[in-house]
Amino acid sequence: MQPSVSLIYGLSFLAVAIAFAFAVYLHLWVKRQPMKNKTIADVSGLIKSGANTFMRKEYKILAVFAGVAAVLIFVFLPQGIWKGNWIENLGMALSYIAGTILSAIAGKIGILVATASNGRAAEAAQKGIKPAFMVGFRGGSVMGLAVVGFSLLGVAAVLLLTGDSSIVLGFSFGASSLALFAKAGGGIFTKTADVSADLTGKVELGIPEDDPRNPAVIADNVGDNVGDVAGMGADLFDSNVASMAAALVLAQAIDGGIKGVSTMMVFCYAALGLLASILGIATARIGKNGNPTRALNSSTYVTTAIYMVLTAAATFLFEGFEWRIWAASSMGLLVGVIIGITTDYFTDDTKPIVKKCARASRSGPAFTVLSGVSYGFVSVLPAMIGIAVSALFAYFICAPLGASYALFGIAMAAVGMLSIVGMIISNDAYGPIVDNSRGLAEMGGLGEETIRICDELDSAGNTVKAVTKGFSISAAGLTVISLLGAFMAEAQNAGSSITGFDIMNPLVFFGILIGAAIPAVFSAMLMLGVDKNAQRMVAEIHRQFNEIKGLREGKAKPEYDKCIDIATQGALRELIPAGLLAIIATIAVGFIGGVEAVGGFLLGNIVSGLLLALFMSNAGGLWDNSKKYVEAGNEGGKGSEAHKAAVVGDTVGDPFKDTAGPSINTLITVVSLVASLLAPLFVALSIFG
Amino acid sequence: MQPSVSLIYGLSFLAVAIAFAFAVYLHLWVKRQPMKNKTIADVSGLIKSGANTFMRKEYKILAVFAGVAAVLIFVFLPQGIWKGNWIENLGMALSYIAGTILSAIAGKIGILVATASNGRAAEAAQKGIKPAFMVGFRGGSVMGLAVVGFSLLGVAAVLLLTGDSSIVLGFSFGASSLALFAKAGGGIFTKTADVSADLTGKVELGIPEDDPRNPAVIADNVGDNVGDVAGMGADLFDSNVASMAAALVLAQAIDGGIKGVSTMMVFCYAALGLLASILGIATARIGKNGNPTRALNSSTYVTTAIYMVLTAAATFLFEGFEWRIWAASSMGLLVGVIIGITTDYFTDDTKPIVKKCARASRSGPAFTVLSGVSYGFVSVLPAMIGIAVSALFAYFICAPLGASYALFGIAMAAVGMLSIVGMIISNDAYGPIVDNSRGLAEMGGLGEETIRICDELDSAGNTVKAVTKGFSISAAGLTVISLLGAFMAEAQNAGSSITGFDIMNPLVFFGILIGAAIPAVFSAMLMLGVDKNAQRMVAEIHRQFNEIKGLREGKAKPEYDKCIDIATQGALRELIPAGLLAIIATIAVGFIGGVEAVGGFLLGNIVSGLLLALFMSNAGGLWDNSKKYVEAGNEGGKGSEAHKAAVVGDTVGDPFKDTAGPSINTLITVVSLVASLLAPLFVALSIFG
Repeated sequence: MQPSVSLIYGLSFLAVAIAFAFAVYLHLWVKRQPMKNKTIADVSGLIKSGANTFMRKEYKILAVFAGVAAVLIFVFLPQGIWKGNWIENLGMALSYIAGTILSAIAGKIGILVATASNGRAAEAAQKGIKPAFMVGFRGGSVMGLAVVGFSLLGVAAVLLLTGDSSIVLGFSFGASSLALFAKAGGGIFTKTADVSADLTGKVELGIPEDDPRNPAVIADNVGDNVGDVAGMGADLFDSNVASMAAALVLAQAIDGGIKGVSTMMVFCYAALGLLASILGIATARIGKNGNPTRALNSSTYVTTAIYMVLTAAATFLFEGFEWRIWAASSMGLLVGVIIGITTDYFTDDTKPIVKKCARASRSGPAFTVLSGVSYGFVSVLPAMIGIAVSALFAYFICAPLGASYALFGIAMAAVGMLSIVGMIISNDAYGPIVDNSRGLAEMGGLGEETIRICDELDSAGNTVKAVTKGFSISAAGLTVISLLGAFMAEAQNAGSSITGFDIMNPLVFFGILIGAAIPAVFSAMLMLGVDKNAQRMVAEIHRQFNEIKGLREGKAKPEYDKCIDIATQGALRELIPAGLLAIIATIAVGFIGGVEAVGGFLLGNIVSGLLLALFMSNAGGLWDNSKKYVEAGNEGGKGSEAHKAAVVGDTVGDPFKDTAGPSINTLITVVSLVASLLAPLFVALSIFG
Repeated sequence: MQPSVSLIYGLSFLAVAIAFAFAVYLHLWVKRQPMKNKTIADVSGLIKSGANTFMRKEYKILAVFAGVAAVLIFVFLPQGIWKGNWIENLGMALSYIAGTILSAIAGKIGILVATASNGRAAEAAQKGIKPAFMVGFRGGSVMGLAVVGFSLLGVAAVLLLTGDSSIVLGFSFGASSLALFAKAGGGIFTKTADVSADLTGKVELGIPEDDPRNPAVIADNVGDNVGDVAGMGADLFDSNVASMAAALVLAQAIDGGIKGVSTMMVFCYAALGLLASILGIATARIGKNGNPTRALNSSTYVTTAIYMVLTAAATFLFEGFEWRIWAASSMGLLVGVIIGITTDYFTDDTKPIVKKCARASRSGPAFTVLSGVSYGFVSVLPAMIGIAVSALFAYFICAPLGASYALFGIAMAAVGMLSIVGMIISNDAYGPIVDNSRGLAEMGGLGEETIRICDELDSAGNTVKAVTKGFSISAAGLTVISLLGAFMAEAQNAGSSITGFDIMNPLVFFGILIGAAIPAVFSAMLMLGVDKNAQRMVAEIHRQFNEIKGLREGKAKPEYDKCIDIATQGALRELIPAGLLAIIATIAVGFIGGVEAVGGFLLGNIVSGLLLALFMSNAGGLWDNSKKYVEAGNEGGKGSEAHKAAVVGDTVGDPFKDTAGPSINTLITVVSLVASLLAPLFVALSIFG
């Protein structure tokens, strides 16, 4: 059967429509669940309004940034406006803006439903693990469906309206710009609040973690939502769009624009991935006393199987859909799942590594840190091998179709790895929702058994989070490999005769070394930003305890807003230099060394970015779970010297895993897209290139 | 003037002869200094015999390893012996053995003179800073002269005897094998002893650092010598030989073997570098109340200037010596010095970064760690830019001479950077000598003023060490770039048609990702090795305190030997898997992906190796000096919470800066040489390549 344009795009829009309808249904279902406890409703309302405050400010600053970027795009991209083709430039600028807006909407929806679900999940936990799990999971699913729905909708609409896959890169850059703010900004926010709340509350005043007297306590809960829900959603929106954009650019290089069979294949597979996620979400179940971790993981495996069957059927059905491409795409997804499982080995507290790290804590905090750093370094190996093998496999299985298909195969492996992203986000957003539930259950006085159930749900969220993080970093890695191909294709379009990037070429080598340093410096700037910002917030908390009478005794309310404001403003202030560093370094390397240096720069960025992102995320997860393992009564349990040491490890790990590590993903995508968009400029102007 | 073979080689051998004569003179001078204090002489004797025990064991295991390697080389390299040319294979095997032996001799000499100097420097400190400085510096210089003398002698002899620069790679691989054992093994030894002595002595028993009742105290002092003197010497012997080997392979590709003018140039420049170092050492002076840091640094600058003048004169004098090559070489050296200075910025306690890290310690150990990690990440940027710029400059300045000269230019930049290595080693070996002196002055009861002088000398040693470490990592980076060129030349010799390594080639990319993971895993294995080994030693110390009556009261002597044995055996046992990992991974990648994958693998190794080595060395130095800064009375001073936190940072930093970080240097050289030597096998046999 011939895959017609209307059929395939129809399928895409149908999948999007089903996703939206299902999301609305799930949202309404969540809203129907009871929320009777007044304290919980109040606090949940404070969290919601705090998250909205942050997002409003973030979007305001982003609007300025995006406005400036859109004007620059309009003037310079894809070609200087003085060359006459202003309509194309306008299309690029508009699709850039569309990318930021659609991603922002998806993030907003995620926050909306997450803050509606947290309290309800806490109350549902009174009835047992099953109803509470369903509230948490379905709340997370709304975000997953919104992200994938909007990203597919946006990419399809931009391509249909403009007919040019290069313009999709503009859309993708828009999504990346938002992700940089949401992920890195949210990451700084959440850790600022977390660190300040802990330092002043637990350490100085000796009050419990979620004590409402602490002015930073709401900011801390807000942080979970803006960092782990909205930030993570924007990050995966970005990766998902980037993987499609790269595949589309390479597909266009093979057989023309909208109507080419390769382009059809990208959309068909993406749409089927969304349908697979919908089926996976709809069928997710947990037994009455079931294991939530198993429930989350098994729905991932179900979605994976459905995706492979559906795409196989499509490949069988449609003329011109190549089995080799299907194999590349399936292999990408399988490797993603395997990477997730190996990551789990390093961070799961039923497995030996976490126990070893906890044991090391008996000798003091330095040994906790050394153990975590060492195993964190080791943990990069399986993911690196996985990415390398899937890229190699995709290339060689597709190479017999022709040289340009080989690169397209790698891009389709990335599309495959990200195909089930709807499911991944559902699992991931479940985490912060049930994390919040636990705090709310405590504040609302729902009793020990309810808190225990919330704890069990939360622990499952942590375990699954490590898996999805490994998954998403690897997917970003594979995506940027195909973006490297897209960059070369763009450079060739702009008249460059480049056919590759030889590492023996000193310009390429120059780029590689500079590129490799950027993720390290970027991470450092974010971590130092958390530190500076936390100092400001600690000062504010001290001020409130000194100036507000009765606060210490619980007779007066703290000014929660002030802390949220500080976290918000500081996060955005600290983020901007780090983002500019990355963009300016890319541009500087391009103008110095031209296209070749930029190719090397991207490679250096990818290699050191993957290394550091995997290291930091995994080490952070390891420390977090080691602390929990000690708190569960091992190695001396709570209050022991080992526990103090494990807390130090966890504090080091927090900005590793929640601020710097996951932001590197976004960094490497942003840098790759900036390079692709500016390729024509680097071809035209450069000192050595 | 025509540079004749006899003239240039004559110059090289003359330089070697002068170096040896001067070393003998300095050694005798040190021996003539008084050593009257009986305690000091005894303890110094114990340190010496402990160091000899370690080295004997190390050399014994190494002999087995080298024997097996030599047989394999004889059978397989450069071509399978069944192809008939067994004489060439024998030459390769013998030069491999020569590489290990000459480096071992240089290390042995270094230990000999260092252990003779430490006590004498302590006694000289009674008379003032000037005589003590001279003993420490001249003791270190003997090692510097021995290392450079033997390396130049070995390379020249191998090339003259065989006439083939490929065989020099065998010599270089020998030096690398020894360096791997000496540097990584010594690094594990020194930190095992250091950590165990601190944990049991300072933490558990509350006795001072160098208390003779602690069974690990001699092992700790031995560690300084085997890690920082012998290990560091072997490391720089290795880098120095590798830079010459790479330059010689590329020179041979330009204009033939022994008699080519490029080959002449390599030897001429290396010999002049040695002469410059001799002059620098001979003229090093310190005023009566002078600043030892300034004295050490200024002798580096003097040597740099002398080298540039001497090589300029040679380039003027000899026909065919190109000014462009001179410029590349001088630029390499200048960049090396600049990298040293920028590294200093991150680790010098008179500069802001150390103060910031000390300030962060007030919030607890997690913040000390986060601050050190962050600034450690930032600190990689200047060195990466420096290496990138010097490679780019060398390439473009030499490219007009022809394509093959461009790569040769990079190799000569590395030779330039390493030309003053004799001076660098002198400064570096000075550090552990005066470090030991301080302990000996305390044990020998030489009084407070003497200890204060020793402290001042020690502090200068620490500062200079950071500079020389940045220098040597960068030099290794530049060297391995040229080894990449040498690898390609070897592959072409073996019949490969390769002309570069394109990162868009999935085999290259595959290699890059795997290669990037290796330094991380290697570092982790070394650090975990220190940990395991320290546990064994702590158990032994506990046993001694339990079983030896009167030990706690100082009435009985501990069994120092037992601790030295444990450190020795454990170091070598933990080291071997890490070394094998690197070598086996290289071979596996070669047989899977062929020459292209190996090229990528080397690049990945270099990029992530440089990143991690710079990060770990600089962060470690930063933590060390932050602790010292707090101990000097800042941020609360000794005993404060900030001090406890700073101690945690220092304990984390110890294996970073003294075990893992500097061993990565050697790792990347070993891997590069294995690749070059096995290039013919990878060309002949590989699955995908």
